[in-house]
Amino acid sequence: MKKINGISSDLVVDDEHHAFSPSQSADRGHVSFLDKWILQRLLALLGNPAINVVLWNNEEITGSQAQPIARLLVRDRKSLYKLLRNPAVHFGDLYSTWRVEVEGDLVEFLEAINRGIRDSAGIRWLKKYLSWMWSRPRLNTLNGSKHNIHHHYDISNKFYEMWLDEEMQYTCAYFPDPTMTLEAAQLEKMDHVCRKLQLKPGDTVVEAGCGWGGLARHMAKHYGAFVRSYNISHEQITYARERARTEGLSDRVEYIEDDYRNISGTYDAFVSVGMLEHVGKKHYKELGEVIHRSLTDHGRGLIHSIGRNRAGSLNPWIEKRIFLGAHPPSLREMLDIFEPHNFSVLDVENLRMHYAKTLEHWLERYEAHIDEISKMFDPTFVRVWRLYLSGSTAAFMTTSLQLYQVTFARGADNTIPWNREHLYSHLD
Amino acid sequence: MKKINGISSDLVVDDEHHAFSPSQSADRGHVSFLDKWILQRLLALLGNPAINVVLWNNEEITGSQAQPIARLLVRDRKSLYKLLRNPAVHFGDLYSTWRVEVEGDLVEFLEAINRGIRDSAGIRWLKKYLSWMWSRPRLNTLNGSKHNIHHHYDISNKFYEMWLDEEMQYTCAYFPDPTMTLEAAQLEKMDHVCRKLQLKPGDTVVEAGCGWGGLARHMAKHYGAFVRSYNISHEQITYARERARTEGLSDRVEYIEDDYRNISGTYDAFVSVGMLEHVGKKHYKELGEVIHRSLTDHGRGLIHSIGRNRAGSLNPWIEKRIFLGAHPPSLREMLDIFEPHNFSVLDVENLRMHYAKTLEHWLERYEAHIDEISKMFDPTFVRVWRLYLSGSTAAFMTTSLQLYQVTFARGADNTIPWNREHLYSHLD
Repeated sequence: MKKINGISSDLVVDDEHHAFSPSQSADRGHVSFLDKWILQRLLALLGNPAINVVLWNNEEITGSQAQPIARLLVRDRKSLYKLLRNPAVHFGDLYSTWRVEVEGDLVEFLEAINRGIRDSAGIRWLKKYLSWMWSRPRLNTLNGSKHNIHHHYDISNKFYEMWLDEEMQYTCAYFPDPTMTLEAAQLEKMDHVCRKLQLKPGDTVVEAGCGWGGLARHMAKHYGAFVRSYNISHEQITYARERARTEGLSDRVEYIEDDYRNISGTYDAFVSVGMLEHVGKKHYKELGEVIHRSLTDHGRGLIHSIGRNRAGSLNPWIEKRIFLGAHPPSLREMLDIFEPHNFSVLDVENLRMHYAKTLEHWLERYEAHIDEISKMFDPTFVRVWRLYLSGSTAAFMTTSLQLYQVTFARGADNTIPWNREHLYSHLD
Repeated sequence: MKKINGISSDLVVDDEHHAFSPSQSADRGHVSFLDKWILQRLLALLGNPAINVVLWNNEEITGSQAQPIARLLVRDRKSLYKLLRNPAVHFGDLYSTWRVEVEGDLVEFLEAINRGIRDSAGIRWLKKYLSWMWSRPRLNTLNGSKHNIHHHYDISNKFYEMWLDEEMQYTCAYFPDPTMTLEAAQLEKMDHVCRKLQLKPGDTVVEAGCGWGGLARHMAKHYGAFVRSYNISHEQITYARERARTEGLSDRVEYIEDDYRNISGTYDAFVSVGMLEHVGKKHYKELGEVIHRSLTDHGRGLIHSIGRNRAGSLNPWIEKRIFLGAHPPSLREMLDIFEPHNFSVLDVENLRMHYAKTLEHWLERYEAHIDEISKMFDPTFVRVWRLYLSGSTAAFMTTSLQLYQVTFARGADNTIPWNREHLYSHLD
């Protein structure tokens, strides 16, 4: 079994993890009145969600009078206190190592918890305090970024192929109709982006962070654009180049294994889909500088990024185990990119619900391939990723996270689109 | 002749103002080498626009080698030095009192100056310094707002009727087709807003700042909504009520002569078109509080406002003579309204070019009624308003000003529109 990039190597898994059962662990310490009292207080702070907690002595603490949507099984007192001390940090690791278990739908469980946190003033205060205590952002220097990106994107192309669409889009899809397939919705997303950029044959495009290169190929194939795409993930670049070659697009698409800060040349369009999350807010002005020097006078730009209603940190467990150094910006934070160079924000679209839908598809495909995935990776990895995909779905459903597409142009440009009908005229 | 609200009462008009002619004023002081040198430096700082300056001795200073698009006639040294010291403050007053004159198209002249200011780092620095020295924002307390709004909106309904559309929309129109009439474009604007709010029959709407009440009537008549609109301009409210009565809408539209801070009740939609400019940035949090307490759980909101690419003050002359206490916010500043209550920004549309087009129509109608207007008001007033409409056109054309429509909903609302097709589906 493959242990990947430290995702599971520093998680200590209990011997009995494959057969978690609260009754087996009844000897893991007496359940005190204080244990129960603190737990009750926490459930009350969360607005008494329809969640029951089963302790290591099989005692069940009821969250609300309603039929529970899920039960949280806690294996020992140490795990309980870790959860109480800082759930955002510890829940993920405890879940990944079978020290807590969720009976029932994991996404619904996480949504209920998120809603409780969102709507509770007391928890908000606590969270602010804790996030201040615990936050220690990872650096996105040139070397830091390289390390952080390698950690996540160089796991294995084969792994991502199992649950992404055919074009390997690892970003929010666009579902004009929520019942359409993921494959169709990812093509729709790429078209939506190309329409926002008003791409036409012969346009030159520079892309910052290209994943497996799908958008660049789409722009070249369907819009006749010439695209130069930057990415620091070696595995992704290798895949992207090979695929452009087999699709006969190598003369129109160039993949460069380098940091966005090293982008050179000027282009008709700048595009970045799903990279800003990795840039780090300290570097937004630097990104703005790169865009400023890369765009022609009538150049168009689009940034697509996970974001937030107001500034805040990423869930610390996700930041620690999944996306090292990642930060989903608020719109206010994003303006650091545009303001210094007098860019005009022309259009902001919030596609939050589309990311929840995208993640539902990914999670479904992930579970459908669980046997193959379990053969490739150790069980902790499998569980980490299940929680990450479930938790992200819950975050978009409960509005902890947003998805912003921001279209912009130079302030002095009077050739900006007259309105947005061109985004929808293909529907006639 | 009517002297209105101090617009012209403290402007000293020279005796000879009706027959401005530089040759007549050749005795107004020797033109020194220093005068010319400073002027040349200023023109150079502005990037040598195609503007010539004619001094009081008839001497002509050339801005560039190109054929001049306009000539600026300066009547005496005092006016020149006022212009040099702080053009943003003094140009308007000097123009209004015939101490400077523009030969050629006033809008094109102002656009050339704006472009020079926008693209010159030296001028930007100077402007920053001057705006810091000169800015003294008017207070938008409850009484302050009343005074400031009275100054502009209670001039005379008859005056505004001469150059606004039939629905008396004194805000940016929406031109799906730039060649359509102003009348049609204002109806389109109201429909665009109603579609963004997803209005349906029976919906209740609260409007903050309703002008002459056109949008409220439109919502009631064409969308079956019940609308309560707040405004502190007595003349506008009187007009709005009378018109709702004659149109048989009094049972569906209620106009309240009161400040937006006194809004009560809860509603399916909150709308504010062209009021935020008068709120003052110190009061955005208060406005957010009002919206928060007024919206149902699935309520929608829309704010339509003049804005800027980045924070900055309104042209000080406009703020002094036209819009007392006004401030066009940057998107960053607008977020003060939404962030504290976890509102999700769903959609931002920038309609800058539409405001330039709207202003072109207003200016054309204004000039078409110049004889009637001249009979109603003194000549300085006529000139102040010509400059204000021309300067505003130039500001939108040269991107000093933007027009933002921001649609938002509560963060917890998962019934937000799936996409934006509903804004354009009527075009099928």
